[in-house]
Amino acid sequence: MTRINKAACIGGGVIGGAWAARFILAGIDTKVFDPHPDAERIIGEVMANAERAYGMLTMAPLPPKGKLTFATSIEEAVKGADWIQESVPERPDLKRSVLTQIDAAADSKALIGSSTSGILPTDLQRDMKHPERMFVAHPYNPVYLLPLAELVGGERTSRATLEEARAKLAPIGMKGVIINREIEAFVGDRLLEALWREALWLIKDDICDTETLDDVIRYSFGMRWAQMGLFETYRIAGGEAGMSHFLAQFGPCLSWPWTKLTDVVDLNDELVDKIAGQSDRQSGARGIRELERIRDQNLVSIMQALKAGDEGRGWGAGKLLAEFEDHLWKTAPPQAAGDAAQPIRLAEFKVQPSWVDYNGHMTEYRYSQCFADSADALLRMIGADMQYVAEGHSYYTVENHLRLLDECKLGDGLYVTAQLLPSDDKKLHSFLWLHRISDDRIVATCEHLMLHVSSQKGKAVPALAQIQARLEPLLAAHALLDKPEAMGRHVGQKR
Amino acid sequence: MTRINKAACIGGGVIGGAWAARFILAGIDTKVFDPHPDAERIIGEVMANAERAYGMLTMAPLPPKGKLTFATSIEEAVKGADWIQESVPERPDLKRSVLTQIDAAADSKALIGSSTSGILPTDLQRDMKHPERMFVAHPYNPVYLLPLAELVGGERTSRATLEEARAKLAPIGMKGVIINREIEAFVGDRLLEALWREALWLIKDDICDTETLDDVIRYSFGMRWAQMGLFETYRIAGGEAGMSHFLAQFGPCLSWPWTKLTDVVDLNDELVDKIAGQSDRQSGARGIRELERIRDQNLVSIMQALKAGDEGRGWGAGKLLAEFEDHLWKTAPPQAAGDAAQPIRLAEFKVQPSWVDYNGHMTEYRYSQCFADSADALLRMIGADMQYVAEGHSYYTVENHLRLLDECKLGDGLYVTAQLLPSDDKKLHSFLWLHRISDDRIVATCEHLMLHVSSQKGKAVPALAQIQARLEPLLAAHALLDKPEAMGRHVGQKR
Repeated sequence: MTRINKAACIGGGVIGGAWAARFILAGIDTKVFDPHPDAERIIGEVMANAERAYGMLTMAPLPPKGKLTFATSIEEAVKGADWIQESVPERPDLKRSVLTQIDAAADSKALIGSSTSGILPTDLQRDMKHPERMFVAHPYNPVYLLPLAELVGGERTSRATLEEARAKLAPIGMKGVIINREIEAFVGDRLLEALWREALWLIKDDICDTETLDDVIRYSFGMRWAQMGLFETYRIAGGEAGMSHFLAQFGPCLSWPWTKLTDVVDLNDELVDKIAGQSDRQSGARGIRELERIRDQNLVSIMQALKAGDEGRGWGAGKLLAEFEDHLWKTAPPQAAGDAAQPIRLAEFKVQPSWVDYNGHMTEYRYSQCFADSADALLRMIGADMQYVAEGHSYYTVENHLRLLDECKLGDGLYVTAQLLPSDDKKLHSFLWLHRISDDRIVATCEHLMLHVSSQKGKAVPALAQIQARLEPLLAAHALLDKPEAMGRHVGQKR
Repeated sequence: MTRINKAACIGGGVIGGAWAARFILAGIDTKVFDPHPDAERIIGEVMANAERAYGMLTMAPLPPKGKLTFATSIEEAVKGADWIQESVPERPDLKRSVLTQIDAAADSKALIGSSTSGILPTDLQRDMKHPERMFVAHPYNPVYLLPLAELVGGERTSRATLEEARAKLAPIGMKGVIINREIEAFVGDRLLEALWREALWLIKDDICDTETLDDVIRYSFGMRWAQMGLFETYRIAGGEAGMSHFLAQFGPCLSWPWTKLTDVVDLNDELVDKIAGQSDRQSGARGIRELERIRDQNLVSIMQALKAGDEGRGWGAGKLLAEFEDHLWKTAPPQAAGDAAQPIRLAEFKVQPSWVDYNGHMTEYRYSQCFADSADALLRMIGADMQYVAEGHSYYTVENHLRLLDECKLGDGLYVTAQLLPSDDKKLHSFLWLHRISDDRIVATCEHLMLHVSSQKGKAVPALAQIQARLEPLLAAHALLDKPEAMGRHVGQKR
């Protein structure tokens, strides 16, 4: 897969910083140039948000983080970079001058994207020597989570540049969408602008307040838009008769004198105060950081929900997430066996909100999930990975015995260690401990038994030689360890 | 809680039928009048969709379904109903005449809602004798899943009517939102209209095609809108400086000559064909029924995802779902013990898309989830319900032993039976079987041990007398049954 080797971010505010976070979390070394005195602090905050969000988003193995360097000039930042992202303030002259400087200092093949939300790329690339590799890559807030980048070329941008940009965004989990022609505000902000104008009239005319308007959106078509857009949603409304039928019905409504959009609302002090006051009543009880956390957690949950869409094949942003995770699994180095004379540390978890039951504690089956996911990590470690499964072999769990020893609360960090027990070429027997990170206490144990099966034959068969070769030294080392105290126990057995 | 006792639906198409499904699934007897020859078939299809969606949406105990009756006249349908929902075609004269007939035949206190998406309630209530109880209750497709109803009064509607309507929608899982003043298209469709006009221009002018436009929405702000609306989302963009700051920055953009909304696009044959053609290329590989299923599953998953929002307290439509489930639990009758001389049938499950692993089978920890949820059902049966937990007592699982005997595939129906094993006032020991419905095979077993604890004291204490009184006859009856063959086994034990 085409990938970015070195990135540069010119401008490191909320947008530029989130681009940097995307690159770094995808393992790409990134240089940032931003003369603002708070730049390092702001990027640090955005990085922390992004890491928190990724921690919730995926259990797939992220690569080692790329190196973050702060450069003291544009020239220093762009040296050696093959993707340069400009995110300076939205002033045409400033952007053009910065982009011209980038162009002069960068490798002539490096891609140069601008984060502008509305300025035409033709205007921005005017003074460049190599304008064919410059384009708009317009992202959406929060940039570290929402995957879209609108890719827009100017008159002198080559089509190949846009295709290459799209291909390079995929491995960092982003969806590049190529817009046919440049217009001010491109596609997304045009749609948002239309909605904003109407919304402002509705507030000004006292049809509803800001909270009611938000509720109308989020309890109805907002949820439709998270998964299908406008046209696919209404295609369904047309029924079997199709889109033409829907449009034929809908057409007359368009010319009704409904929306006020023939005029631009005067956003004077009075209207600003009104909206700000209503917004305070609606959301003022929570600080911006709290709203940000809630939003990020919701976006993560929605993407995970969509990952289950289309009968488990993934849908929209969830399909993109599944593809991103697949890429991470495929490119992850084999897990290190660590010190083989000790139980192996397999996986870490954080107690998610959806893991907590009505008692306020991690619910029973999530303990089971931690152990099951850890057993998967053990399998990957011995080479029984997705590729091995695709070739028709797999380990199936046949039995486990779980002891819940302590409560886990929301946000608790947990990790699992495992000791292999005497096993053979068909059976993999192990004992696992779930530890709380904060006090290192054991909160649960699991004795676990898997069988190696051929999916074609539908029965247990010996594991292939390459698996056994990795297993044997581990089994030999673990044979020297003491037997786990609870091994071989049955439910309710007295100590 | 104020609730609807009997409902009537006048007009039983896709909208009216979905209202009927909402009522019936909430346990409300419902009469439908629709002279269309296909009415029964259409309502049957909508009911099936709604039941499928509810089956995925919630594990909470739905009440016994309300009775569906087809009436042969408006008068017969509305007799005895306290909520009458009009959903006839969108023609002002027809709607007014139907509503006037309803008004004449209905109880004078019955609420009368119209599903109109744009006609002013003042026009609709013109000829009524009791106009004060008539209002618009405008829902969103799919009406059986999306919770919003815009509640809009006309000049002669009383405010008390709107408040009562809102209160009565809550127990059926809907969010009534009161709009201050009537305007054509109310709030939601005004916003949609604005977006539609802009979208049509973007397609007509070849800025992008329908698929690109949909992708721009669903990979970015569509996901924002599913959870916060417009104002709360942009409040975050304003940062600590707040909403006024955001608007001050944003204001100048509004007067940029961006959107084309000063003019109405000519939706002529050429444009209709263009959109229909692009839509075919985008979505034509799937039939409408398939798209409908995908959409419903996505909406269900999004609502479930939002249920985990705000640190598990629920957010937006997910909070509403949690409140609906809470209501269902509180109003559910205690579970019947059945024939005490047999294992007890506890709960049913369907293998969801998100339950299936990379092998194509139900993943390990979902077996555990089926048993854990069944243990909860057992607890409710003996009176250890949410109320009991709220009062400071609960059963905690301390140990279980799971044997996975057969694979389960996507869509498989499953049920759990349980046999109580010798237990005491602090310990509840049981053995559970997971059966596949289609062939009645046992696919897994679980030996399960719970301790009764005081959440205040943080230790095991005897269960309260009312729990023990329900447990004792069950324990006595189950003591006569044979011991389960796998009871007391440990992991890997030879048969």
